[in-house]
Amino acid sequence: MEMGTDEKNIKRVEAKINELGYEVGEIHGTTRTVIGIKGDVSELNEDTFIPLPGVEEVIRISKPYKLASLEYKTLLNGGTPVYTRVSVDGIEIGGDKLVIMAGPCAIETKQQIMDAAKSIDRIFQEQEHIARPILRGGADKPRSSPYSFQGLGEEGLEYLAEAGERYKMPTVTEVVSTEKVELVSKYVKILQVGARNMDNFELLKSIGQSGKPVLLKRGMAATVDDLLQSAEYILDNGNSNVILCLRGTKSFDSGKNGPYRNNPDAAYAVALRKLTPLPTGFDPSHSTGARYAVKGVAIGAVSMGADFLLVEAHPNPEKALCDGSQSLHMEELRELVNAANDFRGLYNHHFNGKD
Amino acid sequence: MEMGTDEKNIKRVEAKINELGYEVGEIHGTTRTVIGIKGDVSELNEDTFIPLPGVEEVIRISKPYKLASLEYKTLLNGGTPVYTRVSVDGIEIGGDKLVIMAGPCAIETKQQIMDAAKSIDRIFQEQEHIARPILRGGADKPRSSPYSFQGLGEEGLEYLAEAGERYKMPTVTEVVSTEKVELVSKYVKILQVGARNMDNFELLKSIGQSGKPVLLKRGMAATVDDLLQSAEYILDNGNSNVILCLRGTKSFDSGKNGPYRNNPDAAYAVALRKLTPLPTGFDPSHSTGARYAVKGVAIGAVSMGADFLLVEAHPNPEKALCDGSQSLHMEELRELVNAANDFRGLYNHHFNGKD
Amino acid sequence: MEMGTDEKNIKRVEAKINELGYEVGEIHGTTRTVIGIKGDVSELNEDTFIPLPGVEEVIRISKPYKLASLEYKTLLNGGTPVYTRVSVDGIEIGGDKLVIMAGPCAIETKQQIMDAAKSIDRIFQEQEHIARPILRGGADKPRSSPYSFQGLGEEGLEYLAEAGERYKMPTVTEVVSTEKVELVSKYVKILQVGARNMDNFELLKSIGQSGKPVLLKRGMAATVDDLLQSAEYILDNGNSNVILCLRGTKSFDSGKNGPYRNNPDAAYAVALRKLTPLPTGFDPSHSTGARYAVKGVAIGAVSMGADFLLVEAHPNPEKALCDGSQSLHMEELRELVNAANDFRGLYNHHFNGKD
Amino acid sequence: MEMGTDEKNIKRVEAKINELGYEVGEIHGTTRTVIGIKGDVSELNEDTFIPLPGVEEVIRISKPYKLASLEYKTLLNGGTPVYTRVSVDGIEIGGDKLVIMAGPCAIETKQQIMDAAKSIDRIFQEQEHIARPILRGGADKPRSSPYSFQGLGEEGLEYLAEAGERYKMPTVTEVVSTEKVELVSKYVKILQVGARNMDNFELLKSIGQSGKPVLLKRGMAATVDDLLQSAEYILDNGNSNVILCLRGTKSFDSGKNGPYRNNPDAAYAVALRKLTPLPTGFDPSHSTGARYAVKGVAIGAVSMGADFLLVEAHPNPEKALCDGSQSLHMEELRELVNAANDFRGLYNHHFNGKD
Repeated sequence: MEMGTDEKNIKRVEAKINELGYEVGEIHGTTRTVIGIKGDVSELNEDTFIPLPGVEEVIRISKPYKLASLEYKTLLNGGTPVYTRVSVDGIEIGGDKLVIMAGPCAIETKQQIMDAAKSIDRIFQEQEHIARPILRGGADKPRSSPYSFQGLGEEGLEYLAEAGERYKMPTVTEVVSTEKVELVSKYVKILQVGARNMDNFELLKSIGQSGKPVLLKRGMAATVDDLLQSAEYILDNGNSNVILCLRGTKSFDSGKNGPYRNNPDAAYAVALRKLTPLPTGFDPSHSTGARYAVKGVAIGAVSMGADFLLVEAHPNPEKALCDGSQSLHMEELRELVNAANDFRGLYNHHFNGKD
Repeated sequence: MEMGTDEKNIKRVEAKINELGYEVGEIHGTTRTVIGIKGDVSELNEDTFIPLPGVEEVIRISKPYKLASLEYKTLLNGGTPVYTRVSVDGIEIGGDKLVIMAGPCAIETKQQIMDAAKSIDRIFQEQEHIARPILRGGADKPRSSPYSFQGLGEEGLEYLAEAGERYKMPTVTEVVSTEKVELVSKYVKILQVGARNMDNFELLKSIGQSGKPVLLKRGMAATVDDLLQSAEYILDNGNSNVILCLRGTKSFDSGKNGPYRNNPDAAYAVALRKLTPLPTGFDPSHSTGARYAVKGVAIGAVSMGADFLLVEAHPNPEKALCDGSQSLHMEELRELVNAANDFRGLYNHHFNGKD
Repeated sequence: MEMGTDEKNIKRVEAKINELGYEVGEIHGTTRTVIGIKGDVSELNEDTFIPLPGVEEVIRISKPYKLASLEYKTLLNGGTPVYTRVSVDGIEIGGDKLVIMAGPCAIETKQQIMDAAKSIDRIFQEQEHIARPILRGGADKPRSSPYSFQGLGEEGLEYLAEAGERYKMPTVTEVVSTEKVELVSKYVKILQVGARNMDNFELLKSIGQSGKPVLLKRGMAATVDDLLQSAEYILDNGNSNVILCLRGTKSFDSGKNGPYRNNPDAAYAVALRKLTPLPTGFDPSHSTGARYAVKGVAIGAVSMGADFLLVEAHPNPEKALCDGSQSLHMEELRELVNAANDFRGLYNHHFNGKD
Repeated sequence: MEMGTDEKNIKRVEAKINELGYEVGEIHGTTRTVIGIKGDVSELNEDTFIPLPGVEEVIRISKPYKLASLEYKTLLNGGTPVYTRVSVDGIEIGGDKLVIMAGPCAIETKQQIMDAAKSIDRIFQEQEHIARPILRGGADKPRSSPYSFQGLGEEGLEYLAEAGERYKMPTVTEVVSTEKVELVSKYVKILQVGARNMDNFELLKSIGQSGKPVLLKRGMAATVDDLLQSAEYILDNGNSNVILCLRGTKSFDSGKNGPYRNNPDAAYAVALRKLTPLPTGFDPSHSTGARYAVKGVAIGAVSMGADFLLVEAHPNPEKALCDGSQSLHMEELRELVNAANDFRGLYNHHFNGKD
């Protein structure tokens, strides 16, 4: 709509949309109001709306998602691209600093998660110019086999929350069903949607309604469009605190056919920066499945603009109940954090015009 | 255990397993009792059990699944392979006759599903030596975009149930979350787990506990081992009425890179017959995404031993709210059923020794 | 051009094409002359040609290939689709009868290929209504490892030719470099381009110039468009005797991640029949890499319209120097031929209107 | 063999190997002689050799390649890993400095390649601590369509050589058939084997015999093992100057299904550094197929340890006859070189212990 157009004109356009059987999505940007038309608009004609008073322009968003589209958000801002920053306890994801989320795959005992948090805290105390870390740990683990360790459940959530409080780190954990959204929300700051649930639209809707910050992982065979449409489910349910996480995809050389468990897909961070305002990070642990490669591949992701890393680190990986072979020792995490911080600085210099 | 061994010996072995920190899975086969040891047994030694009284043999199941393994079921039967037959209102899935499940992608109106059921009924009345059809139709549709038609929900379930009753066909529909398992179970005979939910382990557990026949679809990037481990979740929760459904996978030439929406994977029916006792079928509609190819590819699946076909057919595909371009016209369904029946006969002759 | 248009008009159009910097491809169909414009025509305007005398219509071929396009060939025939039949010693590939090409992966000794040919001959003597077989055997083997058996070279070609003559079967073998096209052409009736060489355009040109019947295998990650463009290289060099062979593709579950060496792609025969006039066959041996699955998957291909099968069979697979685990025993080949013949009959009945 | 063992002992072991029907591969390392046994050694017993005089140890190389294996080369060096450095006109590929190979996809005119070389030269004059550039340009272009520009052939080679001489840059170009190895070798310093020819074993053998430095590109669906076995063909033919080049692979989201032409595979540089002594580089142009992403993804590769970049840059990409949409403008190349140089410095600091 034109800048400063009055409410009556807006209502008239919306009435027209409804009359034609479409749903309205009204969004108030910083400089103007944009009225979205939801649904399959391929047979809708621009000329239907252009003559209405107050209509400045009719733009067809070429992507199958809107709220997750940088093109759309830029439009709302009068032409200037604006990237989303998700703030968690003062830590800004999508801001100038790299954010690192670290911790064990699964919470195994209270001692284990406390030890992990303590070590992580110490590593970050040593660093300057780096964001505070976020503590990760799984309480409900979706495992391929029903006979593998499935996590401690609510007991694990309690331990995680306690560790986060003691060491002043926000926490992130996975939610595996709609029924658990409320429970998990009580204990942690960021809800994670796992790769296996990226297409679990019921879960996405439920998390959308929760309003909590969400870390949405890319599915193992999800295209970038699929990922952004899943994000759209959350955004469209009123939750704008969405961050995306690349974690490797399936290909002819993943698993037993190649050196890595998955095909590391960090290079898609470059494309996502062009397509979406949402912060994008990378999980080097699941992408490679191999401890020796985690640091190297993580640094590549940082250098390609990943806003955050989600890394598995364990006080004693050899004894881990889950994903031990890809978990870093705490000493290795220290090296990774140290290098990642330097590479982020150089990235800011060359790609963000910041020093 | 040895045939006829007494209860005391069985208990002693189970106590030993528990003592070592493993879980017991006791199964009474037709000829003997088999005691399963659940968990990661890679470091367990056969010699621990061999000396115990009543133990005949210690066998390591090489697969990451047990109940879904033909090797395991054969063992329980004293060496003779036995295939699972899932019976629904007298229709046997996994038996000698091909079963066809047909209907629209989504239930749109009462009229539409009634029309579909009527046409399907008529087509099958004409055929001899064919199993009665099963009526399919979606009430809750998982769609990539939040702006696509999402289904009628419970209203759709009511229509589906009514159509099934009037035309005496059992019904199948998808369940999209744990919360809906009970509701959907009231209306239909077979619960479907969609490809996007194959790794939704919470849903699998919940459906396992329901005891209802389940049609489990292969995930878009799931290996055969992944599929059978998902089946194991259902079986391990006490539900043995599992049927598997191939539906195409993602590959370098799926979607916009090739002629089909997915990579048709019917050839995996041949491998599954060697690996699992569970009935296996094929969905030619999602595999190809192209009406012109549905009949041809479906016939290939029948000739490779598919126990059933899951086919989208619509009274008026051009007006369908979902997947219209891959839905058959009812006249095309008639041709498919006719050809499929003949090809199944020839398959029985050449591969099952039946005429 | 219009039917019966004179040579002067044709020349005028061609001069115009040359003047604009494009190359001419003149083709005389049964009912009219079609003038092709080669090159990137996306910026060319139809209006440039429509006013010229004798021009009936300007049609844009949407595919990146022309001579391999059914759309194009249909155009040349005044609207009726015509499929190519490649005739080799009276055996018609692409005709009503299924053609089977069988033999060992590699020619190992004179005795071995003679034994194979003798067994194959006997199997086909028993069958009615089946085309004569074609004998396959590799003389130059492209192997992943330089340390694997690389074939007997010209000695192998001599043995193959001798076996073919004695048992009156045409022969097919792979050509691995441009330098060998002439030599191999002396010994065999059909030149095979292997999957690894599908993109070896120099080899394709050279084989195109040879005029010999060519069996072109699909590359392991070649889309259908890639395959047809490779065929176009041969056709454009003046050789119309091209037959296509599907042989499995790479995917996330090929190799060590799944039950098969490759992802069996026989379902693409259905799509190819819509896209190209060229005969299309299937190689169940490389597609599966597993003896137990060869017959089952091959029958699927026949039921989806494969014009021929290319099957590895060996007098003694357990001692084979190459691909033993996927080679059929001769007794298994007999069963396959028997079943394939029946399934082809049923396919002709349901899909070709022939009995 | 033991250090300092005499020739007689070596001959005795080799005779034993020959007697058993295997081929010998004798290699003189810096500290000892290693005798390789070529062929399928799976049924060979270590005990056959251990008792022979002078034999220190029998080691089974687990990889299907030997000369391309870091494990094997390390063995030859008494346990210390040694990486290969390939020197071309004093430029060391695989050394401390990043090497950049830049130039147009295809040589179009003398003027074009001269302009490109001049601009590249100027860009590198501005940089300190960077290796001299290598000039790339295609003379024979393998194109999917026979109707696309196929390159200038020998005329192009002449122009490339002239440009290389004038601006003192070594040159690299692709060889597309065995027949052209000799011709191309006369004009350029590095022979390139394209992705489509990675499995063209005849070409690999021929290039192996030429002794020229070779840039071997990874095939579009080649596993890391496949790539290293192709390298083994060249090494086994006596040419140790092999450098590997990652260039993107095919996956479910390559091409029209995602933002990139291929799946950028730079992360495999980390794995290759563990598996092989051969230098490994990355081609960001073919990996992405999108100009906007070339710099970002290239920097990721440098940060993951790529020894070189192979980049398409053109004086006027909008008018390029080949791959224009992925070619950098010269000004963009300048930015890439500048950033890459800085990131390589940081990589040396964090991963090589060098400053």
